[in-house]
Amino acid sequence: MENSEWEGLNGLPKLMDLLEEPVPGVGTYEDFNTIDWVREKSKDRDRHPRGKIATKSKESTWALVKGISDAFSGWLLMLLIGLMSGALAGGIDISAHWMTDLKEGVCLNGFWFNHEHCCWSSNETTFQERDKCPQWKSWAELIIGQSEGPFAYIMNYLLYVSWALLFAFLAVSLVRAFAPYACGSGIPEIKTILSGFIIRGYLGKWTLIIKTITLVLAVSSGLSLGKEGPLVHVACCCGNILCHLFTKYRKNEAKRREVLSAAAAVGVSVAFGAPIGGVLFSLEEVSYYFPLKTLWRSFFAALVAAFTLRSINPFGNSRLVLFYVEFHTPWHLLDTRLGHYPVLEVLVVTAATAVLAFPNGYTRMSTSELISELFNDCGLLDASQLCTYANGSEPKSGGNALPDRPAGAEVYSAMWQLALALLFKVLVTVVTFGMKVPSGLFIPSMAVGAIAGRLLGVAVEQLAYYHHDWVIFRGWCSPGADCITPGLYAMVGAAACLGGVTRMTVSLVVIMFELTGGLEYIVPLMAATMTSKWVADAMGREGIYEAHIRLNGYPFLEPKEEFSHKTLAMDVMRPRRGDPPLSVLTRDGMTVEDVEGLIADTTYSGFPVVVSHESQRLMGFVLRRDLIISIENARKRQDGVVSSSRIFFAEYTPPQPASSPAPLKLRGIMDLSPFTVTDHTAMDIVVDIFRKLGLRQCLVTHNGRLLGIITKKDILKHMAQIANRDPDSILFN
Amino acid sequence: MENSEWEGLNGLPKLMDLLEEPVPGVGTYEDFNTIDWVREKSKDRDRHPRGKIATKSKESTWALVKGISDAFSGWLLMLLIGLMSGALAGGIDISAHWMTDLKEGVCLNGFWFNHEHCCWSSNETTFQERDKCPQWKSWAELIIGQSEGPFAYIMNYLLYVSWALLFAFLAVSLVRAFAPYACGSGIPEIKTILSGFIIRGYLGKWTLIIKTITLVLAVSSGLSLGKEGPLVHVACCCGNILCHLFTKYRKNEAKRREVLSAAAAVGVSVAFGAPIGGVLFSLEEVSYYFPLKTLWRSFFAALVAAFTLRSINPFGNSRLVLFYVEFHTPWHLLDTRLGHYPVLEVLVVTAATAVLAFPNGYTRMSTSELISELFNDCGLLDASQLCTYANGSEPKSGGNALPDRPAGAEVYSAMWQLALALLFKVLVTVVTFGMKVPSGLFIPSMAVGAIAGRLLGVAVEQLAYYHHDWVIFRGWCSPGADCITPGLYAMVGAAACLGGVTRMTVSLVVIMFELTGGLEYIVPLMAATMTSKWVADAMGREGIYEAHIRLNGYPFLEPKEEFSHKTLAMDVMRPRRGDPPLSVLTRDGMTVEDVEGLIADTTYSGFPVVVSHESQRLMGFVLRRDLIISIENARKRQDGVVSSSRIFFAEYTPPQPASSPAPLKLRGIMDLSPFTVTDHTAMDIVVDIFRKLGLRQCLVTHNGRLLGIITKKDILKHMAQIANRDPDSILFN
Repeated sequence: MENSEWEGLNGLPKLMDLLEEPVPGVGTYEDFNTIDWVREKSKDRDRHPRGKIATKSKESTWALVKGISDAFSGWLLMLLIGLMSGALAGGIDISAHWMTDLKEGVCLNGFWFNHEHCCWSSNETTFQERDKCPQWKSWAELIIGQSEGPFAYIMNYLLYVSWALLFAFLAVSLVRAFAPYACGSGIPEIKTILSGFIIRGYLGKWTLIIKTITLVLAVSSGLSLGKEGPLVHVACCCGNILCHLFTKYRKNEAKRREVLSAAAAVGVSVAFGAPIGGVLFSLEEVSYYFPLKTLWRSFFAALVAAFTLRSINPFGNSRLVLFYVEFHTPWHLLDTRLGHYPVLEVLVVTAATAVLAFPNGYTRMSTSELISELFNDCGLLDASQLCTYANGSEPKSGGNALPDRPAGAEVYSAMWQLALALLFKVLVTVVTFGMKVPSGLFIPSMAVGAIAGRLLGVAVEQLAYYHHDWVIFRGWCSPGADCITPGLYAMVGAAACLGGVTRMTVSLVVIMFELTGGLEYIVPLMAATMTSKWVADAMGREGIYEAHIRLNGYPFLEPKEEFSHKTLAMDVMRPRRGDPPLSVLTRDGMTVEDVEGLIADTTYSGFPVVVSHESQRLMGFVLRRDLIISIENARKRQDGVVSSSRIFFAEYTPPQPASSPAPLKLRGIMDLSPFTVTDHTAMDIVVDIFRKLGLRQCLVTHNGRLLGIITKKDILKHMAQIANRDPDSILFN
Repeated sequence: MENSEWEGLNGLPKLMDLLEEPVPGVGTYEDFNTIDWVREKSKDRDRHPRGKIATKSKESTWALVKGISDAFSGWLLMLLIGLMSGALAGGIDISAHWMTDLKEGVCLNGFWFNHEHCCWSSNETTFQERDKCPQWKSWAELIIGQSEGPFAYIMNYLLYVSWALLFAFLAVSLVRAFAPYACGSGIPEIKTILSGFIIRGYLGKWTLIIKTITLVLAVSSGLSLGKEGPLVHVACCCGNILCHLFTKYRKNEAKRREVLSAAAAVGVSVAFGAPIGGVLFSLEEVSYYFPLKTLWRSFFAALVAAFTLRSINPFGNSRLVLFYVEFHTPWHLLDTRLGHYPVLEVLVVTAATAVLAFPNGYTRMSTSELISELFNDCGLLDASQLCTYANGSEPKSGGNALPDRPAGAEVYSAMWQLALALLFKVLVTVVTFGMKVPSGLFIPSMAVGAIAGRLLGVAVEQLAYYHHDWVIFRGWCSPGADCITPGLYAMVGAAACLGGVTRMTVSLVVIMFELTGGLEYIVPLMAATMTSKWVADAMGREGIYEAHIRLNGYPFLEPKEEFSHKTLAMDVMRPRRGDPPLSVLTRDGMTVEDVEGLIADTTYSGFPVVVSHESQRLMGFVLRRDLIISIENARKRQDGVVSSSRIFFAEYTPPQPASSPAPLKLRGIMDLSPFTVTDHTAMDIVVDIFRKLGLRQCLVTHNGRLLGIITKKDILKHMAQIANRDPDSILFN
């Protein structure tokens, strides 16, 4: 028997024969399980022919064409994802804009025009009052013929709230009825999926359809949520669905995740019009495995998507540059008491939001308009309330940059409104984030930061105006000069607030660049994001996505955290000291009955195969699922396989006595290259191996004998224990 | 004996005891060898205390302070690197600017002023002719009192060439005499070092000093080379030298490489004034191991450096934004016949460059000025020859953007000069790149691309002017409109050319952004870099750095290339079939003499330790260098260790007969967690493990028995063989 163990050395062709006829189901995964990256990569490799380059010349033209199309299918897929996501994002933008305006009134030229388009087509508008034109009627004007007065105001107020409630009701009902996965932003789940977890249907076509529709409804309802996070989910759904067009990506979980990483970049690219920021967001924040090839492909897909979006929505805010401002993302921590009645919860929050938001100009406008106004510097032609400084709303001095001036009464009233809006935004956002509608958190948190920043900016500006002889202003801020830019304070505040919530750094700065076109603000932006990251890290190391993942108990091995404890593999592996020994299969000593008993008695997801119980020398690893499927299949289809049949994992089956039942050969389902570490390997190295190679389990040996097993779940439980958290909070494998 | 193998399970404290008294030299590396990342990481871990968080409260305040300072030392180091590199880059900029102008003349107000500063302090300059002021004298003016006429021209010409020759001679002599590693750009070597290779002195203080001085000389001599690549080398030298201030980084090769990755980002940050581009360059192009922690630190260091540079060199081109343009990098492929006489070679090339460059205005100006002029769009106040269109050099129409116009005679003459300059640049750059002076290739290749782009741009512009009814122009280019921007063509050309040479994509686009402030050009820039990457990849997959690394035979495992052959570990491992068996050490069966014999007979850099020759069960791995040092040390210092002493790798030494010589215990130098794969593991997975974990060697087992070994060199040789290259071109371990 000891001699026959060398069988594998020249037995490869035999193994290939066995693999040629795969049992359906073998090699697939169950829902809420983690994939094995190494195994998936091997599957992809098996698609390619083995051999030297020399043999290529003999291949037919068909094979050559197939090879080229195979290489280009990746780029083609990226093109399709870019086009589809760009188109969807454009559609969402246009619809949301129209429906938001519908809450206030309707266009007489055609109900499908939004307020801005309606007045664009009108010739009677002046540059100053682009928003006012006779074709656009508020509801009060249309119904009771009055546009001013308390009665019209109440009428508009009521209709505004009613529309908001209708939209919110539709959104939450659709999500509940058709696609529960469509709620939230989806970024934490996508992060978990990219790390190798399987959640079936999370990126399916129903989720895509319902998420797209309800996102429009939720945004239009005026809730304090953003569409940017959900757009990442939408783009990932597109990526996943389009993967089904190509065999290479349909069948391989690892390859598909590379595509999804690129799709996440596309999502941010269309959400912010920031292709490079999108690639960096995917790299820094979402992706788990991000090879350079994926970097290039993401870059390409993000470019296509940004292009598509711009061609579809050319009259919308011309994104892709310059002070177009809009963000959001997910935020799901608190669960209110109303959480058990999701529809009621949404309606109550919507009603409260709409009722409170309407009277204050800064909360009634859409959050992105608000941010845009806050970022904006007061120029010559600005009619904004924030820019009515003491020397009149249209100053006579030349140049577009105006010197510092004392603030007018209107600025002070704007400040009060902004302070109230800040309080309102913080409260409403905290309440909104756990609701069962598609919701993002980028925009709300940016708005909070931008309001705070603008308030500070105006305060400093006025200080500098009245006290320009103070030490801190002296030297660089002479009277009449433009030394404080409140808009910049708003921008820096927004970046700092978003950075604190998500812990993005480089990608955030690039996104802010691409959003605002403000390359000259690189230094304050970088300083703000670094500072907010430090401060937030000092209060707790995890960002919003990591917290969400942890609360859901997903098996996510955080690549950012360093494992610095000096435990060894033997401290973490199972069986622990005193436990019964590891359940193993032997090369040829077990019958079908024995194995079925082992499967029934245990819940392990896989079993090591050893040469014999005595030697404990490791041969390979078999997954529980594959074992069950293969035995069932053999019992049904293979003649003579009964409970007393012996199971062979060896390559050559010794001749059986004529009386014995037919043997069952299972070498084909055995992983011949299981990962092993020694019992003395430090856990930080084991964690590193799990992270970098995407393992699901690893066997532990001592002096060449099998000793135990470490699974991803064991590691996560160990890490939870170290951090004084409940190890049982890790729910999935 | 079979029982005693379980010793390790509870034997950890004993092992620690052995490690406490390390033999000097054990655990270090020889020059031109590769480090083992996993081992280095373990060394760093050993510095931290083992145990639970609960024990922390018992630690003294001193330990707490030490812990905090330890955590912050990384950030402090980044701050220092940023400050030092920024300061050096500022100094190099100022000096090179001054010395370049010294070739043409001198300032009467003070010889330390360069041309621009000299005329700034003068009151007699007008805005149009900023360059001309009485204080600045050309050499002819100063010596013979004439500023015009053929004699003065010849005089200036000769002095220009003489200065150039003097600078070049000094540069090449200094490099030869003091620091041969200072030549070239250093980027390929830094890439190799970051992947784990050791080249002692490559990042030392002498290299830093000489590189800084000779870089100024080489740039000032007017050779077709850039200072950007060498600045990356300078920043990495700073990083390496500053690492010596902190024990944590001085002693750990892996930690130091994390710092060097950040330093590379700093180098690009100061070279281009592009902090984000620098971080991405380090990530995409240079680094091997780039965790998120390094991303944040690089970001911080790059920011500090860019800030420092701006405060030191405030009157230089205010980098950090807007049409400041300058790049370069290394290029070392051809070796001319003159290569054996480096000083002569440099002088000949310098003379040829200077003689040919002087008469053509576009080659006489510094390459960065040339690029800046090419990128520049013709505005209202442009006196440039490139902007003298038919309706006069100062047109009357309003706005800064001018409509398309027919080109004047001066533009045509400029076109001829540019075409000649293109030819000249291509030739001279190809000849310059192998020379023994610090030299970069970013700027020269950008210049080539920018000239070609501008030529094409002007051609298209004139086509559009004269044939605006052609199909391609119809619809978007009406007469009198400004529809073609030749400066944009130059920018795209520069990006495409640089992208083709270095295969950078995302980082290149971000650098171009930060250089030009041209966010609106994102789409053409992205399209150009992707296209040039595709075209260049179709002609050959390796960029200039990879080619350089390969030609030098460095052991670099390219992370970008995919290994797609279906070989298995058993096909690559040694011993091959038919070879003598693997040389191993046994746990307790060998004497000092046996081991010394094994060392003398073989050249392997390490030996596996097995339980016994019969069982071939693997215990650990011992490095040759550690073994030699330990035995030598024991023979000298340990009483009773003689040739017949038995060597024990087991934890417990069995009692020895009184007559036998003292045993030598070497468990302390044995790696207890060597990496193993099975013989059936696919090579692409093995390559992946080597890349991701930074391994130097990996042992191969079959059914729990040791079968062979695979080293990094074996893999590189195997890959060379597959690519039909000479496997013996891999020179180092």
